[in-house]
Amino acid sequence: MNATNKNLHAKFLNETAEIDAGTKQPFANSRKIYIEGSRPDIRVPFREITLSDTPSAFGAEKNLPVVVYDTSGPYTDPEIAIDIRDGLPAMRAKWIEERNDTEQLDGPSSEFGQQRKIDPALAAMRFNLTRKPRRARPGMNVSQMHYARKGIITPEMEYIAIRENQRRENMSELLQTQHAGQHFGASIPKVITPEFVRDEVARGRAIIPMNINHPEIEPMIIGRNFLVKINANIGNSALGSSISEEVEKMVWGTRWGGDTVMDLSTGKNIHETREWIIRNSPVPIGTVPIYQALEKVNGKAEDLTWEIFRDTLVEQAEQGVDYFTIHAGVRLAYIPMTAKRMTGIVSRGGSIMAKWCLAHHKESFLYEHFEDICDIMKAYDVSFSLGDGLRPGSIYDANDAAQFAELKTLGELTQIAWKHDVQCMIEGPGHVPMHLIKENMDLQLEHCGEAPFYTLGPLTTDIAPGYDHITSGIGAAMIGWYGCAMLCYVTPKEHLGLPDKEDVRVGIITYKIAAHAADLAKGHPGAQIRDNALSKARFEFRWDDQFNLGLDPEKAKEFHDETLPQEGAKQAHFCSMCGPHFCSMKITQDVRDYADKLGVDEKEALSKGMQEKAIEFVKKGSEVYQKV
Amino acid sequence: MNATNKNLHAKFLNETAEIDAGTKQPFANSRKIYIEGSRPDIRVPFREITLSDTPSAFGAEKNLPVVVYDTSGPYTDPEIAIDIRDGLPAMRAKWIEERNDTEQLDGPSSEFGQQRKIDPALAAMRFNLTRKPRRARPGMNVSQMHYARKGIITPEMEYIAIRENQRRENMSELLQTQHAGQHFGASIPKVITPEFVRDEVARGRAIIPMNINHPEIEPMIIGRNFLVKINANIGNSALGSSISEEVEKMVWGTRWGGDTVMDLSTGKNIHETREWIIRNSPVPIGTVPIYQALEKVNGKAEDLTWEIFRDTLVEQAEQGVDYFTIHAGVRLAYIPMTAKRMTGIVSRGGSIMAKWCLAHHKESFLYEHFEDICDIMKAYDVSFSLGDGLRPGSIYDANDAAQFAELKTLGELTQIAWKHDVQCMIEGPGHVPMHLIKENMDLQLEHCGEAPFYTLGPLTTDIAPGYDHITSGIGAAMIGWYGCAMLCYVTPKEHLGLPDKEDVRVGIITYKIAAHAADLAKGHPGAQIRDNALSKARFEFRWDDQFNLGLDPEKAKEFHDETLPQEGAKQAHFCSMCGPHFCSMKITQDVRDYADKLGVDEKEALSKGMQEKAIEFVKKGSEVYQKV
Repeated sequence: MNATNKNLHAKFLNETAEIDAGTKQPFANSRKIYIEGSRPDIRVPFREITLSDTPSAFGAEKNLPVVVYDTSGPYTDPEIAIDIRDGLPAMRAKWIEERNDTEQLDGPSSEFGQQRKIDPALAAMRFNLTRKPRRARPGMNVSQMHYARKGIITPEMEYIAIRENQRRENMSELLQTQHAGQHFGASIPKVITPEFVRDEVARGRAIIPMNINHPEIEPMIIGRNFLVKINANIGNSALGSSISEEVEKMVWGTRWGGDTVMDLSTGKNIHETREWIIRNSPVPIGTVPIYQALEKVNGKAEDLTWEIFRDTLVEQAEQGVDYFTIHAGVRLAYIPMTAKRMTGIVSRGGSIMAKWCLAHHKESFLYEHFEDICDIMKAYDVSFSLGDGLRPGSIYDANDAAQFAELKTLGELTQIAWKHDVQCMIEGPGHVPMHLIKENMDLQLEHCGEAPFYTLGPLTTDIAPGYDHITSGIGAAMIGWYGCAMLCYVTPKEHLGLPDKEDVRVGIITYKIAAHAADLAKGHPGAQIRDNALSKARFEFRWDDQFNLGLDPEKAKEFHDETLPQEGAKQAHFCSMCGPHFCSMKITQDVRDYADKLGVDEKEALSKGMQEKAIEFVKKGSEVYQKV
Repeated sequence: MNATNKNLHAKFLNETAEIDAGTKQPFANSRKIYIEGSRPDIRVPFREITLSDTPSAFGAEKNLPVVVYDTSGPYTDPEIAIDIRDGLPAMRAKWIEERNDTEQLDGPSSEFGQQRKIDPALAAMRFNLTRKPRRARPGMNVSQMHYARKGIITPEMEYIAIRENQRRENMSELLQTQHAGQHFGASIPKVITPEFVRDEVARGRAIIPMNINHPEIEPMIIGRNFLVKINANIGNSALGSSISEEVEKMVWGTRWGGDTVMDLSTGKNIHETREWIIRNSPVPIGTVPIYQALEKVNGKAEDLTWEIFRDTLVEQAEQGVDYFTIHAGVRLAYIPMTAKRMTGIVSRGGSIMAKWCLAHHKESFLYEHFEDICDIMKAYDVSFSLGDGLRPGSIYDANDAAQFAELKTLGELTQIAWKHDVQCMIEGPGHVPMHLIKENMDLQLEHCGEAPFYTLGPLTTDIAPGYDHITSGIGAAMIGWYGCAMLCYVTPKEHLGLPDKEDVRVGIITYKIAAHAADLAKGHPGAQIRDNALSKARFEFRWDDQFNLGLDPEKAKEFHDETLPQEGAKQAHFCSMCGPHFCSMKITQDVRDYADKLGVDEKEALSKGMQEKAIEFVKKGSEVYQKV
């Protein structure tokens, strides 16, 4: 073992044996609960937030706990001991084996995987994987879409149906009440059933990204008739984070609500880093395999070959990557369409493929070998995330010919993927002013047969570096409402530098806001429960409940305590921000008390007076407008 | 002078003689320029951002400076010495006098103003005002709307026309190119003329908030056919900021882009604080006079009277407040409509009036005396900001009967204001899920005769305390696009505590993003110049230009330097975030270079190939869809 490795090993052991305590700490007044499905090994996790009683001034009542979707996995369950050297329990292993359509391999079947496995120099950093990779038996297709199309409801589908319902049946009517919502296209049923999940997957309108080699995962679904999901990116780089830091970042990302995590690492040892991440990840992991393929040819795009790329797909599929971003829509003929752009090609994968196509003056090997890729995907149930290599990198370039030419090709490729029963979602922009966002969504649905859309933002203006989580959060909320299924987060450091933990947290919370705002606007059943519970807590000055129901309880409490640190301030029935004279909540309660005291006659008189005035006003209004 | 006042005086002198250096510091590579109008005393300020040349690798060219709207007043002009004890120069004084329709009073005509002026205990904190208040001569109306309706183009209107054009005529075509935009309703001309300004003000579609007693102001306009504006709130409270801190906050707010500032102070000495703020403010100041009236009756809403309120209006009008929020739409009959709400009445002014109405069981004195209020407004040219006292305080309460009943009344009151040629805008929500936002805008335009809308957010979800600048920034951008003229900012501390300087900055930048995203979406002429210039700088790795063109150059540079502190990194033609292999900008340049090298025949072949493929694809696509 050379000195570098010794150092790595030492560093590694020091840092990774434990996830930071703050990253695993359950949120205040919250506990992990599990809802069992039709068989005892379907146990769907939720976070249950316990609330205090309504104070007597507001009519003393019990407030039922609120149950929310929970992406944080076993980490926030204090009953489960986790050693990241062992990875998470392989919850799905039995379901996969039961289907009897996979075989266990002797070891990695990719050349690269084999090399890495026996390289003694890597021993120190290698995850101690005791399980061997699996693959579909010859001629078999193990994708959830394949099962769905055969009419099979898998345990994964049932798990998802329970998860999406968020156990709202026991909430009071007041909390459930919601505005009707405006859903563009297909509609969301009042209760999500396993059959509905199956049907959506069969149609290709939703995907369940879940590699058979990632049995540690808690199943989730991406589709516009389900809760809007968000993705958080992690990844080391030249400036380097260690393996342990990457695992910590992944767990940190799921704590705040990342539904999937993309590992965009580009340094060396990405094979080993990825293994650690997947073994410890309760959420789907996505990658961009061309990044690693490029490393294998020392960064020379023109030296890329189908064989190297193919081996990389197999290598990563056997580690358990759940979805691959593949830029197969960047075709030779589209490249000149980007020459007059303000910012050319801004997708890394897109620019690598553009360079390859130009250097060889040949059609992209990703496009040419697309059916071969499908054969790999279905052997492991890896989902496509068809990359938008020609997405706009500036407001100026939004919705241009290059972008939409590629989108049509992605639609063509979607049909090929579906022919193979391979799950598929489509990546989208980028940088788009507000009034052009809906066109992106509409064309995507039209060209790509309603396959789920997965967008980066879009940023609605380019003039705020340092705040691009916000410029893009606006676009993300809107496109989520219009039907986008998953939103890829953007951190405040976008365009400027590498995000630290705080940036990751801010980026994720911003995108949880966008996703939830979209769920509300679509009228997703139950989405409003949490808003209502928080609003009620706010009105009743139940400060701790207000914090705990929020997306970031720790930040809310911290902000509150900056102004009013005393414990008593969290019980006061008005707060010192406005003081009692100006407390509208307090005055409203006076109004209610007054209304309660009124006799029936008085109430009627009040309400009658109101109606008369309303009629009178409409009459007046009409006259008044004529005078202008 | 008692001990308390001595302390105040001492504190005051220490802290207020100077605005913080960082608050006045011009942004890097930026200088204040002035464009002269038809007379030499019309000098409209802009910030000119100087750019570096495009590096030779990207085709070496000069980049013209970009000129942007500037709200920061003389503070960022190093040529102007400011002593806040003297206040800003009274630029408009001559224009006001020239009109010959006002008279100078001997002193404050309000009772309260007179008391405060002679109270020896206040000597230490009193601004040394050497100018006496002005008022319209008997029978005269000095509102900009009145002039506009008489066909007069005032110097203020010409000033605004120059300001709104942002001097875009000398930008290159590339930078000006923009997407067409989608403007709901009336449209924005290619060039804003003084006549257009006059016409919009005459119709009531825009207001110029500018009290004749605030001659220090730099004229600006609020209306949906102009750039979207934002408001920042300041205000002391029980927990107390000093006078000097309030002035500092106002200047800080305009530095980051506050177009108007509302002083929401509720403590004692608010009369004196306000004087200091107005005398030093280059932007319109708004207030909620009922807050001060309530102080005068020791916080007992039921003790409020029309006489006390009237005196408060005169007091503040003679100090120079530019617009008053008046909750005259909170009528007795609407109050019971709020009883079943989740969060009742959340507007402070609204709840004060609701309490008064209930206590007296009488119609609101603001509603009853609305014409009397108009008489005061037109004597000083104070604009109405008709308060939405019944705005929703939660997603649950959005767009309910109480809210829209009040909105109709605000429309009725708008017609009365216009009968008096008094300028008027309408305040709006609040908390509204995305799909209900447009209804707010549409109904406001319909009921209020297209008077400018001025909204708080709206927040699109209630589940993110600590991030309500973002939950509301989403709604603000959308309603701005739909036609809202001014957006009232929300800081991260909303609902939790009092904002500090950093919160104010974050709140303002968030709202500048929302306003600019709306300008882009509406297709405001010239709005895209800044985006394009920044995108071009980004593509060409002109890091400093990218920072300086942003809304917050300091934050952008700070973020960049966290990852890449070396000075050289700001010149590199790729950055170490991705490294040269993954640098899509660099690869794009290779593509361009390659395209340039191609012969004409090759270019044609490429482009022809592309067209053939496109046709082929459409054919294929149609077939493919039939297979599903």
